[in-house]
Amino acid sequence: MLPSAVLEEAQEELLDFRGSGMSVMEISHRSALYQELAHDAESRLRRLLLIPDDYRVLFLQGGATGQFAAIPLNLAAAESTVAYVDSGIWAMKAIDEAKRFVSTVHVVASSRREGYLSVPQVPAEGAFRDARYLHYTANETIGGLEFQVPPETGAVPLIADMSSNLLTRVLDIPRYGLIYAGAQKNLGPAGVTVVIVREALLGEVPSRAPAILDYVRQSLEGSMLNTPATYPWYLLGKVLLWLESRGGVPEMERESLRKSDLLYSAIDGSGFYANSIRPDSRSRINVPFTLPTPALERRFLDEAAAQGLRNLEGHRSVGGLRASLYNAMPFEGVTALVRFMADFEARHG
Amino acid sequence: MLPSAVLEEAQEELLDFRGSGMSVMEISHRSALYQELAHDAESRLRRLLLIPDDYRVLFLQGGATGQFAAIPLNLAAAESTVAYVDSGIWAMKAIDEAKRFVSTVHVVASSRREGYLSVPQVPAEGAFRDARYLHYTANETIGGLEFQVPPETGAVPLIADMSSNLLTRVLDIPRYGLIYAGAQKNLGPAGVTVVIVREALLGEVPSRAPAILDYVRQSLEGSMLNTPATYPWYLLGKVLLWLESRGGVPEMERESLRKSDLLYSAIDGSGFYANSIRPDSRSRINVPFTLPTPALERRFLDEAAAQGLRNLEGHRSVGGLRASLYNAMPFEGVTALVRFMADFEARHG
Repeated sequence: MLPSAVLEEAQEELLDFRGSGMSVMEISHRSALYQELAHDAESRLRRLLLIPDDYRVLFLQGGATGQFAAIPLNLAAAESTVAYVDSGIWAMKAIDEAKRFVSTVHVVASSRREGYLSVPQVPAEGAFRDARYLHYTANETIGGLEFQVPPETGAVPLIADMSSNLLTRVLDIPRYGLIYAGAQKNLGPAGVTVVIVREALLGEVPSRAPAILDYVRQSLEGSMLNTPATYPWYLLGKVLLWLESRGGVPEMERESLRKSDLLYSAIDGSGFYANSIRPDSRSRINVPFTLPTPALERRFLDEAAAQGLRNLEGHRSVGGLRASLYNAMPFEGVTALVRFMADFEARHG
Repeated sequence: MLPSAVLEEAQEELLDFRGSGMSVMEISHRSALYQELAHDAESRLRRLLLIPDDYRVLFLQGGATGQFAAIPLNLAAAESTVAYVDSGIWAMKAIDEAKRFVSTVHVVASSRREGYLSVPQVPAEGAFRDARYLHYTANETIGGLEFQVPPETGAVPLIADMSSNLLTRVLDIPRYGLIYAGAQKNLGPAGVTVVIVREALLGEVPSRAPAILDYVRQSLEGSMLNTPATYPWYLLGKVLLWLESRGGVPEMERESLRKSDLLYSAIDGSGFYANSIRPDSRSRINVPFTLPTPALERRFLDEAAAQGLRNLEGHRSVGGLRASLYNAMPFEGVTALVRFMADFEARHG
């Protein structure tokens, strides 16, 4: 979901970007016009997240899945030890990919045995002091879990997959070694991936990554070692401008709490809808829930779609329902959903 | 450059794709609507290029530069031998990247010593029979060289970088093991990369590539192992539809010859403009040329831009001028350029 104001502006200038007579898609990424646009997007992200000067910001291709490989290939040697926290499907994907490139992948905490009903408790630094980094998934998009505070890792660099919750919460960037996010949840359309990385981590080991995923080389080239996905990057800049105009990250954090509180209250107060995640681990962004039977769930989806409430299917790997409360989802959207839920329950409960 | 008909259609449906009430950018890549669009794009490409059933077509991220790594990481083991043809800047980039992942990179032919004024003569297969594949750059976008026929490689799989000339020439696909192209020249906007690969080459060696660049895994998932760059892929489908409606690849080939013949005739007939590439190696797609002095070149660029003739700067690494005659460039665009060139010469020659 993208803010409608952003899409309308994109539509208006699709054929002629800033009087150039060309579409943004046709402008060379080396042109002054595009360079300015790219630079503006970075400056805006730095302002929104208060990113210090000793952090680099990269705009890459390949999504979070690309970063699952890029992180061990850039920051660890083949014979290194790296530490991971297992909080569900996305964490496991990151772990599986890391195992292909690093000999010792140490899973220091996992809530798998209890069915991922809460975020795992990360042990003290002593348990992974020899690791090049500790990786965790700040928000599990499918499982509906979210870390409310980042793990403490002492001197070990902390790496966060924030694909689904970047820009929904105020962050203390210096606590992190690296943060990454595919754009398609809160930042823009699919095709561009944001990496925020502490400069001191770059070049500590020789990169084994393909050039397109090489942090040092992409950083030296302003993320333009090769032609970037120019249109998604342009739209990302527009989404960031929209976020600034709406009060920035503190306002998005307040909104995400308001939206998710309303929805969880509706679920918990019903006895008809259910979400089994431990309250202190619930995601403000992705809210999975179930109905008494799969047949009722199918009916719910059909009736909801007929009322314009879309994208409520749970991920194909787990089924059920899921409401995603990304920044572009207005509070009114959640109100409408909650109203529909009450109505549906009254008719079928 | 994109066909204006394509951009106008994209603009029209940017806010509402096929009555869904959503932008293509907001539709899940797993939805039936998007799957259909993705499937249509592949079918169209198969029709346009007569791609046989025993070839897979992938739509990946990372551009040609991503493929420079993906090819050795998917098709060769670390201790393999691979063969490359050196025809200029882009060939050398592919070679440099391959050297990071394969122990023996054998450059079997090069025209470097003569300053890349012609495509190199590739020796008979005996010179590289032990290679996993032979890679060549079908068109050098910066140097302005193009192979008019592919090298003969016998049983050794032939790999072609066609980033700047795919869909401008009728191809005999079974002669190739793998063809790849970043979309941003003739296929669509930046952000999507087409890979056409003979099925029999997949899985011969264990892949060492990051999952996003893993041919086998992406092929099994219909190029959706992770979220693809959905909007560029959508536009690529539209460009292919436009190509079909304009007579397909045979017509594009005729047009590219008509356009480049006109421009080379103007250059060769002038004594003021110059292109030093040997005529049998000249690119139909990228035509670099020079004027008597750099000062005249700057003046040419300024005056041309004032008349709406844009993107004529040579690549920053070589300077001079360059006209790119991609499929979306109409014949009238070349006529206008040639007319301007004659006029400029009359005033400054």
